Amino acid sequence: MTRRALSIALLAAVPLAAGGTDASLAPEIRQTAQALRDKALAGSQASQWVAGLTDRVGPRLAGSAGDRQATAWGLETLEALGFANVRAEKVAVKVWQRGAEWGEVVSPQPQRLALAALGGSVPTPEGGLEAEILEVSSLEELGARPDAARVKIVFFDKKMERASDMSGYMRAVDVRSKGASRAAALGAVGVLIRSVGTDHNRLPHTGGVDYEEGLPRIPAAALSIPDAELLERLDRSGKPVRVRFTLGCGDRGTAESANVVGEIPGTRKPEEIVLLGAHLDSWDLGTGAIDDAAGCGIVIEAARLIGELPRRPARTIRVVLFANEENGLAGARAYAKDHEAELSRHAAALEADSGTGRPTGFSWLAGPSAEPAVREIGRLLEPVGAAAASGDGYGGADISQLRTAGVPLFSVTQDSSRYFDFHHTANDTFDKIEPEALDRVVAAVAAFAYVAASSPEPFERIPEGKRALPGS
Amino acid sequence: MTRRALSIALLAAVPLAAGGTDASLAPEIRQTAQALRDKALAGSQASQWVAGLTDRVGPRLAGSAGDRQATAWGLETLEALGFANVRAEKVAVKVWQRGAEWGEVVSPQPQRLALAALGGSVPTPEGGLEAEILEVSSLEELGARPDAARVKIVFFDKKMERASDMSGYMRAVDVRSKGASRAAALGAVGVLIRSVGTDHNRLPHTGGVDYEEGLPRIPAAALSIPDAELLERLDRSGKPVRVRFTLGCGDRGTAESANVVGEIPGTRKPEEIVLLGAHLDSWDLGTGAIDDAAGCGIVIEAARLIGELPRRPARTIRVVLFANEENGLAGARAYAKDHEAELSRHAAALEADSGTGRPTGFSWLAGPSAEPAVREIGRLLEPVGAAAASGDGYGGADISQLRTAGVPLFSVTQDSSRYFDFHHTANDTFDKIEPEALDRVVAAVAAFAYVAASSPEPFERIPEGKRALPGS
Repeated sequence: MTRRALSIALLAAVPLAAGGTDASLAPEIRQTAQALRDKALAGSQASQWVAGLTDRVGPRLAGSAGDRQATAWGLETLEALGFANVRAEKVAVKVWQRGAEWGEVVSPQPQRLALAALGGSVPTPEGGLEAEILEVSSLEELGARPDAARVKIVFFDKKMERASDMSGYMRAVDVRSKGASRAAALGAVGVLIRSVGTDHNRLPHTGGVDYEEGLPRIPAAALSIPDAELLERLDRSGKPVRVRFTLGCGDRGTAESANVVGEIPGTRKPEEIVLLGAHLDSWDLGTGAIDDAAGCGIVIEAARLIGELPRRPARTIRVVLFANEENGLAGARAYAKDHEAELSRHAAALEADSGTGRPTGFSWLAGPSAEPAVREIGRLLEPVGAAAASGDGYGGADISQLRTAGVPLFSVTQDSSRYFDFHHTANDTFDKIEPEALDRVVAAVAAFAYVAASSPEPFERIPEGKRALPGS
Repeated sequence: MTRRALSIALLAAVPLAAGGTDASLAPEIRQTAQALRDKALAGSQASQWVAGLTDRVGPRLAGSAGDRQATAWGLETLEALGFANVRAEKVAVKVWQRGAEWGEVVSPQPQRLALAALGGSVPTPEGGLEAEILEVSSLEELGARPDAARVKIVFFDKKMERASDMSGYMRAVDVRSKGASRAAALGAVGVLIRSVGTDHNRLPHTGGVDYEEGLPRIPAAALSIPDAELLERLDRSGKPVRVRFTLGCGDRGTAESANVVGEIPGTRKPEEIVLLGAHLDSWDLGTGAIDDAAGCGIVIEAARLIGELPRRPARTIRVVLFANEENGLAGARAYAKDHEAELSRHAAALEADSGTGRPTGFSWLAGPSAEPAVREIGRLLEPVGAAAASGDGYGGADISQLRTAGVPLFSVTQDSSRYFDFHHTANDTFDKIEPEALDRVVAAVAAFAYVAASSPEPFERIPEGKRALPGS
């Protein structure tokens, strides 16, 4: 459907609102969406679902005991809340497990280092890995010194800048994902990175390392930021700095995990799906409150509020709590594959995986004719601070797998100023949740989902030319 | 000397200042003190000494290898800066050592707990200590339930309030020092406390436990505040909560440590001493930057600036970097004992042990006739924000041992709003130092010390009736 066609369809269905600007939403859709929004703003139960997942389950890395408990928690919670078609859809995941870990400066004088293995890292030899460090500030600097890394432990001291969006993270994270292979290619024996984070706590930020095929896999760990700054000061004092670290982590085969699914069935078009996603797994250091119990709480609560309406929307709201977002995306891939046949009937997908900050806007990726409808949604979201719509969205890591099928992708952008103080650390715990901000996100997601599931015509799908996954 | 006598002496020596209010300081003393103050405000080297102690030595609990390195660092630093009579005065210390430690909720569902043994704690049995918890909010609540603690692990969930002074800490710390013995007296098998701190990091706050004679010594540990809040939520969900924890810590005999001393010799009255103290030891979890490398940096730098003057003051400035403040006060006691014969010639003592916050005033404890001089000092300290003088000071833990000898005691009070976010945790590292605030404290201490060492008459000593140590 072209943009003009959608406009005509919407205009045909909807009388002009009094102000003359809200032309494309039927009044009953608008009013119900507003009521949902305002109900969530008055206080939702999202934080309660976050507390359930973090307190009753805690850490839940794919394939761990916590992961299995999280699946059980998801099924039980969705059942208890009256969702329909509650089910666990099996996902095979690769298992990686942290072990004992220890780091220290050996010379010029002994100092303990607070560090954590990066997810996926190979272990060090027993007894640890000891070498002189080579400090570089970026992949580029390493590349410019191709002979300097041999038999060294490369120390990537790249600083992340605080930002209200993800931009600081996106600029800094390459050393975590690519640093190990780049260093290994130059003969390095190990990698330490300054944690990709914005805090100053002695709590390292983990996160996945991506080993390149065909290169030696060398151990990789993140130093807490105070420890990275210590190493930086020691290194700049002019004497060679030797460190030793031990990582007992490693791959532990495969295991069964699951995407947990539950639905609020649609009335007139139940076969058409509006997917609300978040991920159920978490890194192992904290209890995954902001990443991503918060998202689970948001989408469960938004769907629950819609399910409580006296009249449900036309399309089905499907909550998907994805497995294995953090270190593999196996859940997202399994969903895209297993549901391939019905992806053409996925009218929209939204992912909540941005923590507990207040909404700042929303992003979308759909066909151009969706724009007037997006603007209408923006007006609905003005009272929650999420009016600003950005058309270059990607939805989120899990739902981005639906892009190749053209499913329109959405996300509520959130204030991330403090997100990276806690992200992927032991500090990601329930006390970091801001219930009022979370309610605002619920308000935005519920209003969006209701409109997406109720509007006579679905959003125009992503144009063929824009369906390639980023990086592919 | 009476107050009247002091006033007469000062008036005799000092012409009235132009404004008529600054009657009791000789202009040359005032001007030199102002110049010292302003030099420190323009940028001192205090942070550099803090970096030296934290980066080159790090953790330095009494009797540890770090403690010995700290003594060496102190001697080397004072020598290098040209102090006179630099020496290590031996102190025998009791040694306590942390071991492996681990905590977990066993039921209603497993959860890892971030905890740290309190200093001085006995170890748990091998394999850990497991019991149901009894949550109480205070020593008083425990006392009101004398039958509830038997065979339980008592969980003291007492919240510390943030304050700009030490008041929040003083109100909260009793559960850490006294909780174990109070609980043991009622048949408890172990104690966990909510960390005495104001942060929300997964980093427990250690600190000393005081076992009472004649009661069983039971293992005691601090939970990080997020973990204490988890336990609180689990406990309030109604089901019995069982926890297990393992502490491998324990007493390890005695060792030799030292007070490190260095002097800026006085000119006309070198036998009279103005003591500037801080403590060289630290807890073992962090690198002791705010507690108390900051204090060491402050007093070293204040004395160094005085030593650089073209004309040194009449009295000797003696820097004492005390051993074992954190868990025994053996350094303070040894100093008081070893220097007993010259304590009557200690004209004043000041201790810096309040971290890195900006000055907010100063406190004093001396004879009443010192008040006009104290007010004069207050006026000198106005530009650094430390004008407010409080007459109920105690100086600090180390110099309070000099109280029985009547030595006038002083301290610069500092903004402590953030001090207890880091105090006694792994987070007490150099990055927490605020160099500009530290310079302000140096300015205050240098100006005070110069006046104390230069004024014709010393401060009136603490009256006999006020010389008892608090709590004795």
